Amino acid sequence: MSSTWGHAFRITTWGESHGGGVGVVIDGCPPRIPLEPAHLQAELDRRRPGQSEITTPRKEADTAEILSGVFEGLTTGTPISILVRNQDQRSEAYTEMAGKYRPSHADDTYDAKYGFRDWRGGGRSSARETIGRVAAAAVAQQVLKSLFPQLEVIAWVKSVYHLSGNIDPATVTRALVESNIVRTADPAMVGPMTDLIKQMRSDGNSVGGIVECVVRHCPPGLGEPVFDKLDADLAKAMLSLPATKAFEIGSGFAGTLLTGLEHNDPFRIDDGRVHTTKNDSGGVQGGLSNGEPILFRVAFKPVATVMHPQDTVTSTPHENTTLKGRGRHDPCVLPRAVPMVEAMTWLVLADHVLRHRGQLGS
Amino acid sequence: MSSTWGHAFRITTWGESHGGGVGVVIDGCPPRIPLEPAHLQAELDRRRPGQSEITTPRKEADTAEILSGVFEGLTTGTPISILVRNQDQRSEAYTEMAGKYRPSHADDTYDAKYGFRDWRGGGRSSARETIGRVAAAAVAQQVLKSLFPQLEVIAWVKSVYHLSGNIDPATVTRALVESNIVRTADPAMVGPMTDLIKQMRSDGNSVGGIVECVVRHCPPGLGEPVFDKLDADLAKAMLSLPATKAFEIGSGFAGTLLTGLEHNDPFRIDDGRVHTTKNDSGGVQGGLSNGEPILFRVAFKPVATVMHPQDTVTSTPHENTTLKGRGRHDPCVLPRAVPMVEAMTWLVLADHVLRHRGQLGS
Amino acid sequence: MSSTWGHAFRITTWGESHGGGVGVVIDGCPPRIPLEPAHLQAELDRRRPGQSEITTPRKEADTAEILSGVFEGLTTGTPISILVRNQDQRSEAYTEMAGKYRPSHADDTYDAKYGFRDWRGGGRSSARETIGRVAAAAVAQQVLKSLFPQLEVIAWVKSVYHLSGNIDPATVTRALVESNIVRTADPAMVGPMTDLIKQMRSDGNSVGGIVECVVRHCPPGLGEPVFDKLDADLAKAMLSLPATKAFEIGSGFAGTLLTGLEHNDPFRIDDGRVHTTKNDSGGVQGGLSNGEPILFRVAFKPVATVMHPQDTVTSTPHENTTLKGRGRHDPCVLPRAVPMVEAMTWLVLADHVLRHRGQLGS
Amino acid sequence: MSSTWGHAFRITTWGESHGGGVGVVIDGCPPRIPLEPAHLQAELDRRRPGQSEITTPRKEADTAEILSGVFEGLTTGTPISILVRNQDQRSEAYTEMAGKYRPSHADDTYDAKYGFRDWRGGGRSSARETIGRVAAAAVAQQVLKSLFPQLEVIAWVKSVYHLSGNIDPATVTRALVESNIVRTADPAMVGPMTDLIKQMRSDGNSVGGIVECVVRHCPPGLGEPVFDKLDADLAKAMLSLPATKAFEIGSGFAGTLLTGLEHNDPFRIDDGRVHTTKNDSGGVQGGLSNGEPILFRVAFKPVATVMHPQDTVTSTPHENTTLKGRGRHDPCVLPRAVPMVEAMTWLVLADHVLRHRGQLGS
Repeated sequence: MSSTWGHAFRITTWGESHGGGVGVVIDGCPPRIPLEPAHLQAELDRRRPGQSEITTPRKEADTAEILSGVFEGLTTGTPISILVRNQDQRSEAYTEMAGKYRPSHADDTYDAKYGFRDWRGGGRSSARETIGRVAAAAVAQQVLKSLFPQLEVIAWVKSVYHLSGNIDPATVTRALVESNIVRTADPAMVGPMTDLIKQMRSDGNSVGGIVECVVRHCPPGLGEPVFDKLDADLAKAMLSLPATKAFEIGSGFAGTLLTGLEHNDPFRIDDGRVHTTKNDSGGVQGGLSNGEPILFRVAFKPVATVMHPQDTVTSTPHENTTLKGRGRHDPCVLPRAVPMVEAMTWLVLADHVLRHRGQLGS
Repeated sequence: MSSTWGHAFRITTWGESHGGGVGVVIDGCPPRIPLEPAHLQAELDRRRPGQSEITTPRKEADTAEILSGVFEGLTTGTPISILVRNQDQRSEAYTEMAGKYRPSHADDTYDAKYGFRDWRGGGRSSARETIGRVAAAAVAQQVLKSLFPQLEVIAWVKSVYHLSGNIDPATVTRALVESNIVRTADPAMVGPMTDLIKQMRSDGNSVGGIVECVVRHCPPGLGEPVFDKLDADLAKAMLSLPATKAFEIGSGFAGTLLTGLEHNDPFRIDDGRVHTTKNDSGGVQGGLSNGEPILFRVAFKPVATVMHPQDTVTSTPHENTTLKGRGRHDPCVLPRAVPMVEAMTWLVLADHVLRHRGQLGS
Repeated sequence: MSSTWGHAFRITTWGESHGGGVGVVIDGCPPRIPLEPAHLQAELDRRRPGQSEITTPRKEADTAEILSGVFEGLTTGTPISILVRNQDQRSEAYTEMAGKYRPSHADDTYDAKYGFRDWRGGGRSSARETIGRVAAAAVAQQVLKSLFPQLEVIAWVKSVYHLSGNIDPATVTRALVESNIVRTADPAMVGPMTDLIKQMRSDGNSVGGIVECVVRHCPPGLGEPVFDKLDADLAKAMLSLPATKAFEIGSGFAGTLLTGLEHNDPFRIDDGRVHTTKNDSGGVQGGLSNGEPILFRVAFKPVATVMHPQDTVTSTPHENTTLKGRGRHDPCVLPRAVPMVEAMTWLVLADHVLRHRGQLGS
Repeated sequence: MSSTWGHAFRITTWGESHGGGVGVVIDGCPPRIPLEPAHLQAELDRRRPGQSEITTPRKEADTAEILSGVFEGLTTGTPISILVRNQDQRSEAYTEMAGKYRPSHADDTYDAKYGFRDWRGGGRSSARETIGRVAAAAVAQQVLKSLFPQLEVIAWVKSVYHLSGNIDPATVTRALVESNIVRTADPAMVGPMTDLIKQMRSDGNSVGGIVECVVRHCPPGLGEPVFDKLDADLAKAMLSLPATKAFEIGSGFAGTLLTGLEHNDPFRIDDGRVHTTKNDSGGVQGGLSNGEPILFRVAFKPVATVMHPQDTVTSTPHENTTLKGRGRHDPCVLPRAVPMVEAMTWLVLADHVLRHRGQLGS
């Protein structure tokens, strides 16, 4: 269904930008997993607006309330409902949108599908929806850490516009990523990227970029043959995030410029385990994890809201007009996209771990 | 589930390379749709091995039998079961694989997951599995053509290795694609690409490339907000195909090199309908089709089977060894990948059309 | 999944008796359906405790808040989240339950499954969970009334313990059922049933009974062959309600005492439509509705909480002990079960109507 | 979906009475489970027509072919496809049905839903569809026996028409049931029931009855709270079988004639484990198995095909007419319903065991 992800670890998000709130229901979570609001808050704080000088100044504490499914600090195995109330709503900034479609937003297509729409702040298409994903992923992370203490999911900003970092996925750490407000992993690029984003804001323009993500110490055998391949689910998960346009794993598009002899990953025994001596496969072969680091990249387009007049149409009836963006917006979504990419990765892994355990027994 | 695609138009494929056959069950197909074996065969013939001098010489007629769900030439609305028997099986070509993992194949990961595997021809990980998809997609195509006679899905080979065609997605036709054995849409590249693939075969090497696909006259509003976005489902569908490593829609990765002002697609009224004056969105906005052409690209890695010794390990116990590919293989999967990409696109569209109709009524 | 019902009109309930609240998320609801909190409240008021002298005196207003999915009084087509806060919680009445299993409750089995449980008021196994179902069904009812204005779902108390009403399903009205606190449809039984229930309460004992339900003016063809038969889904829906032990449709168990010649429902043309001249089929044939009234019965066991000492065991470690019920409870769940049976029926119908429309087009 | 059962151990059946065959695809089966065609055949032989003098003389060997998912005698973990070809088809016996609706069959409702139907032998509504279920259940049985060697599922004929057996579910054995062609478990009733069924056949009439089923040594904790309760899924499973009209578990409808004090099942420690001293709950409490025997009953209506003229209507256009049954039919479906009831029980259990293991880890 539209708003449900997962088969075994299954989440359903709900909520609009300017409605009563946003949230998520998690069904299928294993019991007796420690869970405190602080676990959720730590991740929500990385996603929330107003966290730094290069994100939107919209101020929302985004405080999560756990309404069910936890008793005496432990998950009960029954649905976990999480609620975040909306607070800093300024609908007036959006009144012009009631009658005009914002270019490269979802206004036109929501009208085409549903016949009308909640136009306040983008309604359901707002990135506020991802709050539910990030909160649920914090639960998934607790589950997976209890089963695989070494498992790591780390994402970072690989590029912003034409600025690309020089980053070794093998050594990047969460601390390095969190040490700067861009969430890049190349210290040399923090200054230039920050300056670029500020420049874009002062120009009333915007930029996009690429987030890269690594999963380390993933148990081998996760994923399923045919449709629910691990990489296929990661691709869907990433393309389900707002503003994404592309996904590649391992060698990706560049892999088409290699021959088979160059591209194939040879196997060798190391420490008694099967390893590949390089990793163009990106940690997934035949749709199943092979125990090597899973490495993928996601392209985020430039933010669609810009502070210049653009050609567009009115909603009813359809007539040509122009619209200039207003309100408070991110000039670059990348720093806040990092926890979203990680969140979807945790959700994909949690679902596959529980499905695998159901069929295989451990 | 692993082998099921779709919620409303739902297919389940089954079968291994060297077992009793391969096939598919389709559930949820609307009734009274004309369906003959010839509809399936036309698409299966585009997928089958041995169709040209640049594909594997493995000879399989891949004749489809419709076992259920069709009465007097019309679908009944109940499950359609389709069976294709395996024929040209030479297990002996694979006996060495019983004990050694082929690099960048799924041998190692299947063992990791299931504890053992059908090693004959790759078993379930064989691309023969896609026969079920292509057959089901031929049914989906019949359904969609009955509802939207103008709807078109056309894929073509955009690039092979370093050779890239100069192709206008707005004008490419099925006839043009089918006019050459490479299934490219740039006549100037037919010769060079054919020569390159032949050279790779004689070298015992292989190459990959990029398939591009356009959907024309797609009704607006298809897809669902949040997880089941149309582009997210297309991404998963494509990454579920064997040998794929990347997906991009519209501007894709290159879109990160534009600013918001450059990237946004302005709206204009044309012929009384809302249109965008360019299409960096790739026909999908907010996860829903906007009526413009849907345009995406899929990267296929070079074929993993090469005729040179490669480092690998034995299966039980694990020890270092080498393995040289044998048997009959495609040196380049691209020409046969074209109908697979189209098939997954038809399946995604059919499912979303029926889901949309369920919720919206038409 | 455990807490999700439906494929096209899909609901997920959450919440425990003494947690932060209970609620539901509805996904797949058609857009532009009028929906006000009053629609929910009217049904929740029929379900809530403390509504009459024969229900539990626990006082809960059970006020529903619609958090998302409704804009300017109309559904938007995106998830509808509904929240009911818990209020009248007296956990102290349950402290003894923390260490002892209540006979014929779910305490023992929840511990067996999850390793621990929220013992306050039964936690997730509390009938408070049905608030989410009743609220969601009020939405389903709005959807179905917009499509089939004549469609009616009416349930009533057929029997309480040995007292059985004499009721004609063809003529019973909602007004008649709501005219008395027992919610029976035989005026002559209101007094005896009320007296019996009061007597049971003063005895510290409890009784069960049978709820009967009719669906009138159901469109023909709803349901699906094989597993998702309309009657199969109704059976599951009813057995998913707390305290239910049996379901029968049409002739039910008594139909086994007829021969085929007696049991078969002859067809006749009436008013230009196909009708059966009697209805032992109960409105469903081959799993699909035939347009005749759908008639079924559901058995509710006597309430498990009784105010007498009963043999039981302690939870950790397991030792023999006794437990006497405390607190405020219904001596008979039947009057409040009527809206629950109707709710599950609306949910089954809404899901099948949307699924049918997806495959069949109208 | 219509023809799919289960979430973790998931089956999809297909096929019509007089099409190319019937079959099933099983997805999610654990690997390395021994599986031979003989496992399937043993159960199919109990279901097939022509097995005794009181079943239909239609002769079908119903030989199962395993097309995929098994390698060297073990399941591979990938989809298992099973095919049974149709053989003894005499469409001519059904030609009159092409134009007339058989009373209390699915002819009218299939036309109402789909606009036309495969009228040969009932098409998809034929009980031949259950071949796929029985074959899949034989696989489920292999899986469950490997995990819980003591687990038993035994069904028997409790009553035929007014003849009811005196049977103790605690001691009944498969051997006792299989020792007679009626599949009852009361030796004293074998003669009267056999005579009754023969009499019905010679009268051109038919009878129904009740099948009872016990699950012994079921692990506790199976099932899920709320919608997917174990008893709710059993109810749906049984009502999905052809010709069923009612389901009850434990005390069932009769339980409404007890007070709470009488109905509650006291707990006692026995052999170090928690037991109930009686079993009105029927082995399920709060939707979860409690380790006691699961006991339920299913009502099968009298077979709808009778050899006497009955009032009915023509299909196109609708006009009043009469129809007399022809062909070879069971005068009583009960003996062949026993393996069907067992099959659905195995399928419910297998799915819940794998789901439980996914969430709980063992």
